[in-house]
This record gives sequence, C-alpha cells and structure tokens, in this order.
Amino acid sequence: MGTRGEVEGAQAEIRRRNLSRLLQELHVSRPLSRSELAARLHLDRSTVASLVAELAARGIVQEHHRSNSIPQSPGRPSPVVELRRDGPGALAIDLATDWMGAAVVGLGGKVIVSTRREASLSNSKPEKVVEDLGSLVRPLLASLENGPRIVAIGVSVPGLVRSEDGRLHEAPALGWRNVPIGQLIRNEFADLDVPVFVGNDADLAASAEHLRGSGRGTTDFICIWGEGGLGAGIVVDGRLIGGSAGYAGEVGHVTVDPDGDLCHCGARGCLESVVGEEALLRRSGRNPMGGTAAIEDLIAAADRGDKAALSALAESGRGLGIGIAGLVNIFNPNRVSLGGLYARVYPYVRAPILRELEKRAMPAPRAMVDLVTVRLGNALLLGAAELALAPLLNDPAIMSLQQEPAPSDANDVPETFASRAPGLLAQG
Amino acid sequence: MGTRGEVEGAQAEIRRRNLSRLLQELHVSRPLSRSELAARLHLDRSTVASLVAELAARGIVQEHHRSNSIPQSPGRPSPVVELRRDGPGALAIDLATDWMGAAVVGLGGKVIVSTRREASLSNSKPEKVVEDLGSLVRPLLASLENGPRIVAIGVSVPGLVRSEDGRLHEAPALGWRNVPIGQLIRNEFADLDVPVFVGNDADLAASAEHLRGSGRGTTDFICIWGEGGLGAGIVVDGRLIGGSAGYAGEVGHVTVDPDGDLCHCGARGCLESVVGEEALLRRSGRNPMGGTAAIEDLIAAADRGDKAALSALAESGRGLGIGIAGLVNIFNPNRVSLGGLYARVYPYVRAPILRELEKRAMPAPRAMVDLVTVRLGNALLLGAAELALAPLLNDPAIMSLQQEPAPSDANDVPETFASRAPGLLAQG
Repeated sequence: MGTRGEVEGAQAEIRRRNLSRLLQELHVSRPLSRSELAARLHLDRSTVASLVAELAARGIVQEHHRSNSIPQSPGRPSPVVELRRDGPGALAIDLATDWMGAAVVGLGGKVIVSTRREASLSNSKPEKVVEDLGSLVRPLLASLENGPRIVAIGVSVPGLVRSEDGRLHEAPALGWRNVPIGQLIRNEFADLDVPVFVGNDADLAASAEHLRGSGRGTTDFICIWGEGGLGAGIVVDGRLIGGSAGYAGEVGHVTVDPDGDLCHCGARGCLESVVGEEALLRRSGRNPMGGTAAIEDLIAAADRGDKAALSALAESGRGLGIGIAGLVNIFNPNRVSLGGLYARVYPYVRAPILRELEKRAMPAPRAMVDLVTVRLGNALLLGAAELALAPLLNDPAIMSLQQEPAPSDANDVPETFASRAPGLLAQG
Repeated sequence: MGTRGEVEGAQAEIRRRNLSRLLQELHVSRPLSRSELAARLHLDRSTVASLVAELAARGIVQEHHRSNSIPQSPGRPSPVVELRRDGPGALAIDLATDWMGAAVVGLGGKVIVSTRREASLSNSKPEKVVEDLGSLVRPLLASLENGPRIVAIGVSVPGLVRSEDGRLHEAPALGWRNVPIGQLIRNEFADLDVPVFVGNDADLAASAEHLRGSGRGTTDFICIWGEGGLGAGIVVDGRLIGGSAGYAGEVGHVTVDPDGDLCHCGARGCLESVVGEEALLRRSGRNPMGGTAAIEDLIAAADRGDKAALSALAESGRGLGIGIAGLVNIFNPNRVSLGGLYARVYPYVRAPILRELEKRAMPAPRAMVDLVTVRLGNALLLGAAELALAPLLNDPAIMSLQQEPAPSDANDVPETFASRAPGLLAQG
C-alpha cells in the first residue's frame, strides 16, 4: 500500500516517534517493566525490547530484573526499565524579581541539586546578574558526583520572550528591554558547550504543573502566575500556546476596568494594575515595592484578622475573579491553577474569585472548571528543565551511541536490517 | 529499524496520512499536475500516482491531460488532477437570528447551489424551524443535476455547541436551550442518511476564513463575529481551539466594564453588552431589537454624516478595541478579522479600534498584528461545509471503492501487496 520511498521515510519517522513516546512515558511516570511499557504504548514486546536497547546504548536508560517481586504472570519476569541517574539532564535557571535560583534536573523531573539566592534583580544590569549567576552555579556544578550529564540549559524569566531565538523582548519587572539573555548565559557557561533555551515564567510554570502538578490529566489548563507581575501559561488541547512569536499569555494586561489605575505598561485598568502585587500592597496601606517581605507581613495581618488586610485581599480576589471568568469564557478549560503570590494568598481570595465566576462565567464552561493552586514547590525550575530537555525527549537519538545496542530477543527484527539491506524493509 | 508489527501499523497510517494530505492540497488549492503535487507534498511521483489512482477509484478525483499547454520539462506531460464535480460534497446549513440559509458545497469549497430565507428565528420552536428548513432545502436538492453526492450535513448555529455530540447547549439570541438540533435535522433529512455535524457560527466563520479568506497563511488568527450576539473563532498554531467541551471562544462574555450594563447572560459589562448589536442600536437611539434593517438604517445615517450615528459607532469601536487589545495580549495573533455586523460598520469603527490597540495592546504583539475584515461572503456556510467534510478529508478511504484502482506506473509498488502478502511489506 505504498511505494518504497514512502515506506523508507515512514520507517525512520515511526522509529523516532516510538523512541520519543517510550522515553516520554518513563519521563512522566516511574520505572516500568517492558510489558508495562508495551501495554501503555500499544506496542508489541519485541518492539519495546528493541527501543529500550537503543535508549540503553545511548546512555539514557538501564534495565534490571526485579529481585524480590512475586512473578505475576507465567514466563520470564519482564525486566524493569529506568532512567539512568547519570543520564542526560538540564541546568535549570530561574531569574525572578527578588531572587535567582538554579538546579540540576535529570530526566523524570528529578532535582539532583539546587540553590537559590535572595537578591533584588530589578534594574540590575543583565551582565552583572549573569556574572552573579555564574558564581552561584559553579559550586553547584562542582558538587555533582555521578549526576546527570548536562545537555542543555533552560532559563525562566519574568518577561516576553521571542520563541524563535529566546531573546528577552521586555521584562518590565526587571526593567530589562531587548536583552539577549540566552546568549549572555551561554557565554557565562561556555565550558559546558550546550544550547540555552529561554522561556516566560508563567509559561514554564504552566508546563511543569501540567506535566506533574495541578494540571496533570487535563487537556485545557490555565496557570495564573503572579510574582511581581501577573501572567498566565495556557495549555490548549494538551499544548502550551505561544502565539505567533511566543508572546501569548499576557493576561495581566487585559483591560478589566477601562478607566482604572495606570499600569506599568502604559494602559489603564489592566488586570495587573488592579490585582497585581503592587496594587494589593498599596490597597492594604503597605509599600507597593515592599516585595516578598511586605506580602508575608500582609498575610500575617490577615491571619490575625486585620480588617484592612482582609479587605485588600478580598478586593484583589474580586478583580482576579473577573479576569479568570473571562479566561473561562474564552478557553473553556478543565482547570485553573493559581501560582506564586496567588497561591500564598489563596485562602483569602478563593471565595471572592468563586463569587465572580458564578456571576460572570457562562454556566456551561463554569460547571466544568476547577479552581486550584499549584502543587510543585519549584514549578519554574522544573518548567525550565522541561524546556531544555524537550529536544531530547522529541528525538532521543540526539544522544550519541555509547555502545552497540545489546543483542535483541530472538523474535526481534535485526536492529540494523534497514541500513544493511536497503532494498528489504522487513522480513517475514 | 523496527519490528514487523510496528512497520505494518505504520504502513497503513502513512498511506492514510498521505491520501489525506493530497486531497487536502487539492481542496485548498486548484487542479494540480502530478508533478506539482509531488513537489508540494515532498513525495516521489510514483507515490503520487498510486495515491491519485486510489482517490480516482473512490470517485473523488479525476485526471486529464492538459491539451494546449506548452510542455515545461522534458518527458511525458504530467496529467492534471482535479476534484470531480460529482464527487463527495456537503449540505451546509446556517441558522441565524434573522435568516436561514443552505447550500450544497463540493470539495474545494465550491458552492454549487444555495438559498436563503429572511425570517426571524428568535423564539421560534426548533421543530418548526427545522420543518421550514426542510421546505427551503428540498427544492435545492431536487435542482441538483450531476452535482456532488452529499456525504454529510454541516450546521452553523449562534450558540454554545458541545463538541462531543453537537448538542446545542444554549443559543441566547434564538432563545434556545439544550436543543438536539443535529438530531432534529438528521430526522428531517432521514432520506439522505448522512451524519450531521453542528458548530458555533463564529468558529465556523473562523475556520472558513482561515482556510480561504482573510486568515489564509496565518498561524494564529482570530475572527470576531457579530450577528445578534458576539463571539470569536480562534485559531492557535493552525488549529481552531475548542476548549475542553467545545465552548471556547465566548469573547462576547468577557467583562470589559465591571459595573456596566446588564448582559443577556446575567453578568454586567460583558463585551457583548457594551458593543453588541443591541447596544449599538440603543446608543444610536434606535430600537435595540431592530435587527438587520435597523443596522442598515444606522449605516445610512452615518454615511450622511449623522452625528448621533457616528458617535454611537465610535463608542462601539472603542469598546471593541478594548476587547481586541485583550485578545492580542492573550493570543499574540498574526491577524484579527472582523465579520458579520463589524465588517459592515468597519469604516466607522476602525480608527477607534486602532486607538485602543495603540493604548492597550503590548507593543511587541501589537506590532505584528493586522486588523482586517472577513473576505468570504458566505463564511458560515463554507465553515459548515468544512465541518461536514472534515472526516472525509482526514480519511478519504471512507468513500467506498467504485472500481479497481487503475493500473499504476511500472515502477509503482503493486497496490495490494500488503493485503495479499502479509509477511512481505515491500519489495525491491
């Protein structure tokens, strides 16, 4: 049912896709036996054996036989496939307004080592920030023993990132504009000689939460992220949306009150200017630039029952509810998750948000949406690692072969039949 | 590089995908020679010949040799492949507040016959509307000579449609709630014995405009549709978004003024209640329920320079600009297209929309978005036809074989090798 050229192209593509699916399954799951993998991926066991042999030869997975398990089915026990601890991993970096963080993250979202320094990055020179980052990260890398080989760097920044080349177009909260942050970081870590990928903080948080946290199992998921500014990462039909250049998700600058307060962006009544961190602090009588410490103080006051604190939080909740109701009408999501600042103040904003949803979201989409908070403590770093590891997960063959693949089972098609016998694509 | 089961599954899947790609190319393009098809689809000529033979045997395409063309390359002239006029097609139906329309549409988006009846459907019983529709459509079907075979019915409705089963959850403008409109139409046209697919009007307009009109060539496209109500069809990375149940795109119910006028939906200050047809008519001093006639009267007044008309239109433009700016920040689209009412009043709302975009959309996404109007005169019917024909375009083999495929070229792989010789997948 197809010509030879068609079939040959298909072969390579199907192989790549199946390698990718198998690695992705181990990445989001746990160690799995070959037969579990076969069942989950709807592949036969000999195909799974051949795929696993290739991933092992590329230094990504290893197999072992379960020692003290009771055989659940007759026949040979199926070996268990797991990600190698010394396999490929990412250096994840998180640049925020009030801190910088870094971690080495292996496949499977395993954080091997991490570090964080509290420091205001706002209005610092990008070159100086990257230099400081170098001094923070080098001891971390030096401490790695038997850890992952770093194959890429992922960076989270609170701003608009051009997807094409990772250039930071604008990060108002940092006071940065048009900064080649990926290039600066690549130069700082030139000795690693790996590609650098840069993403927007809310997008990365959404991607990590969708994979492993509060968005798991949903198809349509919105993660609202407030940390200084306010943005969202939006997953539609399982995929994070980027827009035509990567700037999508700037829900903080949707107008919710046309004659409201002036926003940093120059417009009036943006969601961020109504319910962002500064507005919340100002409304509660605190210094709008007080940052994390002021927010902690506000929460402590609310915990004591302070009326001004409670009323400021309720007002922010109302504004946030108006914004979320709009997103529910636009996207019909399964779940909306609040992260950053909004996760910390959730007990105080939940009720007013739900009230506005009741009033403003259409009944049909409202009836099917959950409101929750993020679950991962380090969504930004995990999201940055996902971004860095995506090319590998999409095509595991970018890891070079460290050895010949192990001989496969008797009923496997020989590993190399296609390249050795180009005229013969499969044999009976 | 793969086991036998892997390859066999891949074969059928690749064949289906290539048949689909080839038919899709003819569907959005024009008649193309085999060599043009090979170049556009990156397939070799023998594969294209085999695919075309199958589509011809299924009664979808036909081939002819160009008669009076000058050969552009040495060798045999490549036959031209075109969609058959008597091939598969759709019955497209458009139920709006002020009219009902229908058309028979062939592959390629070719409208063969169409009809329309002006009639207020608001608050009519769905059963009565469908009966009237039957009396409108029967003569149309009877007039078809040598036209397409109708393989599916597509229906556009101004309301929330559950994607799973096409049930109309709610159409406020029609006063309908929870109507199994697809089933009613299927019963009315039981003699055709074809499936019925139902979609939201703005979604269908967006899909047709993206394929053949103002959104052609874009990846991220928003079509704002105002006809009675106000909604949008939103294309993200080439695909129309539906949300978890198909209710996405209800931008008319995003709050733009928290304390604004009460909307039909029960909330205050929705975009629709601020800039929809009724608000525009009321603001200009006309009967808000005046419908199309009142809108024409308003436009005529504006054309004469009537101040009240111009000011009402400018105010609607401002509100619409606020809403569109939010969508630009959320979606970072290449293009926003205005349809329905907003296309008709475009000359009067364009400037105020652009002013709000300038004030409220972030500079980076704003710089890359165009504002235009829809181009197709019949986007709803064409979109309904696309919806109906999508299963066929995705898998052309659902059309049964009318004859054995024509003998293929000498260097083709025999058509039936996979089924006749299951152990042997391809031969050299």
